[in-house]
Amino acid sequence: MPALPTSNRIVLASRPTGKPVSENFRREQEAVRDLAEGEVLLQILYLSLDPYMRGRMDDAKSYAKPVEINGVMEGGTVARVLRTRNAFFAPGDIVLSHSGWQSHAISNGSDLRKLDPNQAPLTTALGVLGMTGFTAYAGLRNIGKPKVGETVVVAAASGAVGSAVGQIARIFGARAVGIAGGREKCDYVRDELGFDAAIDHRSRDFATDLAAACSNGIDVYFENVGGDVWSAVYPLLNDFARVPVCGLIAHYNENRPAADGYDQLPAVMRSILRKSLTIRGFIQREFADQRPDFYREAGAWISEGRLKYREDIVEGLENAPDAFIGLLEGRNFGKLIVHVAS
Amino acid sequence: MPALPTSNRIVLASRPTGKPVSENFRREQEAVRDLAEGEVLLQILYLSLDPYMRGRMDDAKSYAKPVEINGVMEGGTVARVLRTRNAFFAPGDIVLSHSGWQSHAISNGSDLRKLDPNQAPLTTALGVLGMTGFTAYAGLRNIGKPKVGETVVVAAASGAVGSAVGQIARIFGARAVGIAGGREKCDYVRDELGFDAAIDHRSRDFATDLAAACSNGIDVYFENVGGDVWSAVYPLLNDFARVPVCGLIAHYNENRPAADGYDQLPAVMRSILRKSLTIRGFIQREFADQRPDFYREAGAWISEGRLKYREDIVEGLENAPDAFIGLLEGRNFGKLIVHVAS
Repeated sequence: MPALPTSNRIVLASRPTGKPVSENFRREQEAVRDLAEGEVLLQILYLSLDPYMRGRMDDAKSYAKPVEINGVMEGGTVARVLRTRNAFFAPGDIVLSHSGWQSHAISNGSDLRKLDPNQAPLTTALGVLGMTGFTAYAGLRNIGKPKVGETVVVAAASGAVGSAVGQIARIFGARAVGIAGGREKCDYVRDELGFDAAIDHRSRDFATDLAAACSNGIDVYFENVGGDVWSAVYPLLNDFARVPVCGLIAHYNENRPAADGYDQLPAVMRSILRKSLTIRGFIQREFADQRPDFYREAGAWISEGRLKYREDIVEGLENAPDAFIGLLEGRNFGKLIVHVAS
Repeated sequence: MPALPTSNRIVLASRPTGKPVSENFRREQEAVRDLAEGEVLLQILYLSLDPYMRGRMDDAKSYAKPVEINGVMEGGTVARVLRTRNAFFAPGDIVLSHSGWQSHAISNGSDLRKLDPNQAPLTTALGVLGMTGFTAYAGLRNIGKPKVGETVVVAAASGAVGSAVGQIARIFGARAVGIAGGREKCDYVRDELGFDAAIDHRSRDFATDLAAACSNGIDVYFENVGGDVWSAVYPLLNDFARVPVCGLIAHYNENRPAADGYDQLPAVMRSILRKSLTIRGFIQREFADQRPDFYREAGAWISEGRLKYREDIVEGLENAPDAFIGLLEGRNFGKLIVHVAS
């Protein structure tokens, strides 16, 4: 049996104030230890990078524990079983795990789900057929509840969650209006993904363009960015509109002074009251019992060509910090995944 | 038959900017016209004054049409049938109507509900057994959904809605924490209404006192005031907390600069996301099909002494504007009702 490998890992060196910078991360190496009975040694093949990880870098109260200082950054991964002392796993098995930003990891198997490499590309388990696709599905099905003919708006529409939200909204019979940054992403959202309209939030006319694309108002706003987009959206919400909140990229990084000196909260609360709005934060695992439905339905939609996806693959674990910083700035185009090993 | 009476009425003279002032109202007189077939002439006995009326004075988009300039201020009323050309109503019948701030009104009967003066004091139809009591009941039953042992917080706890919220929450098995302004109201909320705790929002230690009274966090916050109370409450909300929003007295009057230069909206949105909160605006008539349940249950709770109420009766229609202005400042103590005629 070959010698135990050395694990490369990226740990949280310090907590960011505002936007994360390279110095918040540190590369480390560690010798992999021997396996205990029941354990498996995993080689990470792909690492998913997602906006929620910004929240884990803070020590604020949240639904999940923060990453500890000097702890390995967490994250979903696809891995290969290298060695095993667990009867349920054989060397060479491909699994979905939550091993974080590292090249190797040891698991007792309880958090692993075997993947069939012949059924779908492995990376889809981290994206459209994984947590991000399920976030879109669960938020729409349980909170957004779009009715036929209603207007669903989603930001970061070329991203992993947003692209699925708009396409699933259309499968449910609603109109989908996507918001994205720049012409290229907008063209993709409208022409490739089939959204009914795509609005560029970098345009000076963003708020006007959005209102024009939503001439019957907005019935569902799937909130995954926050910031100025939310400020432009909420005045357009219809009575009884629903706002599933699954992410706030624009707010992960900042405590910002009021732009024009005014506190926006009273106006938003007035809208909530006057229009009987529902604003509901959620995390996909609340709806874990719906995952079997999702795998079945989304698998069929993909094979029918009704649910498309795009991946942005970055080579090498050492590039994960920069790629993650870029994700928070909207520099990726498609689901961001790090190719760690083949 | 005696001559037709003259109707005294109070109309909206101008739209307020911020707090309403006396000059926004104007007293008028008008001769009552003859009845057409199917109509009844009502003499208003009691007029309900409620915070929602502030919203009707603006022309902003809302679930209800604004009062027009020179239009009679709207409001719920208890009235006596004076004359009738409608076979369903006899002279002397007592009815619940929505006749507004005036001494007489003509109705075709479709908006009237007959009241039994022997069953409960007439004024309760405007308060604990009327719209305000039903607002508390519907918001808790459909949105707040308190579980046994959970903590329910409500502001304006000595007021019409708040006092019912806390008592019904306790009937549902929850802990009730009330927020009120001043020692007298707090004593009433705790000692007379039986809330588990009462916190004075005028105290310098308000936020600390509130946190101490909610040592297990807050599971339901029944939002009927907004402003600084909401700012103190939302950091204490537990994961999956529910916030029915039925009123925002503090926001009806102001577009205010950010107190410390910071926009509070991002922090609230982060809380919604991190704690999977539900914020849901509502108006009681969404749940109109539950009114029969409410009349039956609340009637029983009142006769069992489990649901108490307090009324603040103002004499004379001409005093309605000042009383209403005081309501928005918290000067009333109990459900505010104007005694228009006997």
